[in-house]
Amino acid sequence: MTEHTSKQFEFELESIRTRVLQMGGMVELQIAKAIEALATGDLDALEEVVDQDHRINLLELELDDACVQIVAKRQPAANDLRLVMSVVKVITDLERIGDEAKKIAKMSKRLHSSDSAFVPRIELRHAANLAIDMLRKALDAFARLDMSAAAEVVRQDREVDAEFKGIIRQLITFVMEDPRTISRGIDILFMAKAIERIGDHAKNVAEYVIYMVKGQDVRHTGLANIERAANTD
Amino acid sequence: MTEHTSKQFEFELESIRTRVLQMGGMVELQIAKAIEALATGDLDALEEVVDQDHRINLLELELDDACVQIVAKRQPAANDLRLVMSVVKVITDLERIGDEAKKIAKMSKRLHSSDSAFVPRIELRHAANLAIDMLRKALDAFARLDMSAAAEVVRQDREVDAEFKGIIRQLITFVMEDPRTISRGIDILFMAKAIERIGDHAKNVAEYVIYMVKGQDVRHTGLANIERAANTD
Repeated sequence: MTEHTSKQFEFELESIRTRVLQMGGMVELQIAKAIEALATGDLDALEEVVDQDHRINLLELELDDACVQIVAKRQPAANDLRLVMSVVKVITDLERIGDEAKKIAKMSKRLHSSDSAFVPRIELRHAANLAIDMLRKALDAFARLDMSAAAEVVRQDREVDAEFKGIIRQLITFVMEDPRTISRGIDILFMAKAIERIGDHAKNVAEYVIYMVKGQDVRHTGLANIERAANTD
Repeated sequence: MTEHTSKQFEFELESIRTRVLQMGGMVELQIAKAIEALATGDLDALEEVVDQDHRINLLELELDDACVQIVAKRQPAANDLRLVMSVVKVITDLERIGDEAKKIAKMSKRLHSSDSAFVPRIELRHAANLAIDMLRKALDAFARLDMSAAAEVVRQDREVDAEFKGIIRQLITFVMEDPRTISRGIDILFMAKAIERIGDHAKNVAEYVIYMVKGQDVRHTGLANIERAANTD
């Protein structure tokens, strides 16, 4: 590459990274808004979350396209190519987090629109905050190529899973005491499941960051290995 | 590219496609085995499904790597690049289908190991067969670049979703009649959810096939658009 081409390439790559972070910010907002509106019963806000999802889908398509373009035009070498390939994977996970936020909003709408009095009182906020925190940290790790932040996200995924199991236990107790809560209980269960999946996707993003930095694929290798990869420079 | 390089490239591309199909076949087997063993209570078979999952994970990593290598070495042009990028996405979905099969096997083990008599009798086989059929068709569509088969998969996803809703309704009835079935009922619910997700992933694969063939991204565009894309040559 000439110096000019190389600068142009750097610029395009930076622009892709920036847009990934914007997409991540939007996705984070969608979850936070859905969870807030679940608590307050703000149906307008829930409707907005559902409406906004297509913008995230669009961003994914645009970024996918930008990645194909940059590879075709610039023919990046190993390191940069790894970055682009990681972006392709990261945005898939971000888009699916967006889908989960939309699902939470939809189920929450149904919950608040139903006239059923038999709603088990189960708090999802703690689990949701954990998942949002994981996503934020994963995006930070992506922005700063910060391996230890990425490893922290992988670790946190266990907390979200534990929260999720706690929610299931609560639900079982509610339904045993009053079976009429089962219908709305299932809605809450699937909202909790959506939160757990958001944690999974954030973990995936974190693992791609480690791959970007290390060129070492840590997926499916377990936490100990990931921490080892994060701590060796 | 010289003729020799071009032939070499064709050969490598073909090898990647073949391995994607092998991976797909393994994943399909995993689901079928988990569902069969859920019905028969064959704990050894369930254990095998759990054990085999790492082979699918490994295939994903190998194929990801092969894709990065081929792009770096051969610098493919637009069409071929699109194929490689689609493969990167397809194998992510296949790997996650593998995860769902593993989850089904794990929950099924728990179900059969529990001494609870309060197991709601809900049939998952029909939904599972639909999802397996979708996956098989999506892989066929990938192998033959068959757009109309791909569109058919997208259409079938609605059937799986409908099956899933039916299962939820059955579960509610069981639990209302006997709340003691809630615990095992939730296991069955999450198995049904896993099947529904397998359908979603198969649909994703089908949409990537349409993208490969048409260079037209049909994700998030709705069924009518997908059928239009499939029918215009």
